[in-house]
Amino acid sequence: MRTRFQQGLDELREKLLRMGGLAEQAVDRACQAYVERDLKRCHMVLEDESRINAAEREIDELAFDLLALQQPMAVDLRFILAVTKINSDLERVGDQAVNIAERVMDMVELPATELPVDIPRMAAAVSAMVRRALESFIEGKAELAQAVLEMDNVVDRMRDEAFIVLVRKMNDAPAVTRQALDALLVARNLERVADHATNIAEDVIFWVRGRDVRHNVGGEVAPIRETR
Amino acid sequence: MRTRFQQGLDELREKLLRMGGLAEQAVDRACQAYVERDLKRCHMVLEDESRINAAEREIDELAFDLLALQQPMAVDLRFILAVTKINSDLERVGDQAVNIAERVMDMVELPATELPVDIPRMAAAVSAMVRRALESFIEGKAELAQAVLEMDNVVDRMRDEAFIVLVRKMNDAPAVTRQALDALLVARNLERVADHATNIAEDVIFWVRGRDVRHNVGGEVAPIRETR
Repeated sequence: MRTRFQQGLDELREKLLRMGGLAEQAVDRACQAYVERDLKRCHMVLEDESRINAAEREIDELAFDLLALQQPMAVDLRFILAVTKINSDLERVGDQAVNIAERVMDMVELPATELPVDIPRMAAAVSAMVRRALESFIEGKAELAQAVLEMDNVVDRMRDEAFIVLVRKMNDAPAVTRQALDALLVARNLERVADHATNIAEDVIFWVRGRDVRHNVGGEVAPIRETR
Repeated sequence: MRTRFQQGLDELREKLLRMGGLAEQAVDRACQAYVERDLKRCHMVLEDESRINAAEREIDELAFDLLALQQPMAVDLRFILAVTKINSDLERVGDQAVNIAERVMDMVELPATELPVDIPRMAAAVSAMVRRALESFIEGKAELAQAVLEMDNVVDRMRDEAFIVLVRKMNDAPAVTRQALDALLVARNLERVADHATNIAEDVIFWVRGRDVRHNVGGEVAPIRETR
């Protein structure tokens, strides 16, 4: 039989997953809005954000209640703390989606122009990172989380490339400076979503392995500690 | 007589304040580096970041230990959770300082140019926000934290203005596009520091008033709940 506390943990996990789904959807919609210059999708992203903010509060309250109700064992405590951190990151993913939507709203006021940057490809890589970070959380698998950390370098490189070609474009064609700047800032927002996915992956590893992998301390990954 | 738990809480508060001092120093140094095109200060910012990252880990570990050691009462639990959230924000303030230092390192490779943007003024406003957010935490005063939330709008406006004048500059003088872009991204980084100060202020209010003020839910602020 599940105890009330265990039911609470399950509920926390489910709520966080739903929130993850909302955050992913917001990023995907924002990138589709960019590709199709679609204001309607921009407004959907703003609605997604309200739902994400409400979900963030619910999750924090539940985490607080679970900690207040009883003294969780070490592994559960790590799980609850990881959830509160992942929660903050997902909320910020939603903020990045809003930033992208705002850039698109700026863009559609300007003449459409061909730009030397593949935002959909970058968006696909970033979405995959968020999805895998959440999968690593569902399955409690540190190896999956580790793979997310490695994908982050790829996205950073894409952002650097976008930066270089778009600055060149601004120099060569000052008439489309604003469009190029919008694209550059969208690339930057996507890179930040990737950073949040990386944070989530680190929190999953902290939860699963009971060890802080942030900032690459110590190199090798410690074996799983059995705490119950 | 202070219990071991209370001593732990004091230690947590002190560590967080020291970390706040480091984060503030990193932002100030990065902005001085911008003004004086000073590579030595850029490298100091990178060193600050390593110390900030180490401090973040220590604080998270101490918070975890305090939660694991015993079942804190509601007000202490809120305090510890607020510390872990403020901790993440301060670490990200350090990241923004590094981003600014990186932009300065890009800038010094380019010819110096006069730009129509007052970065020092924006930096001063942002530093004041971080300082007040930390003061509100030290003194446990929600009113101080509330003032930080209001300052955020001022910084957002400064960023919007910087955006407009710098894009105009890029159009009028394509030869200095990269310098203008560097300044624009520095303004954006400062705005993000202000966002983190806002997050910290919200966490202080959560701790002091036991109520989630994020995303402006509910309008009026609830009275302080006495939980012990």
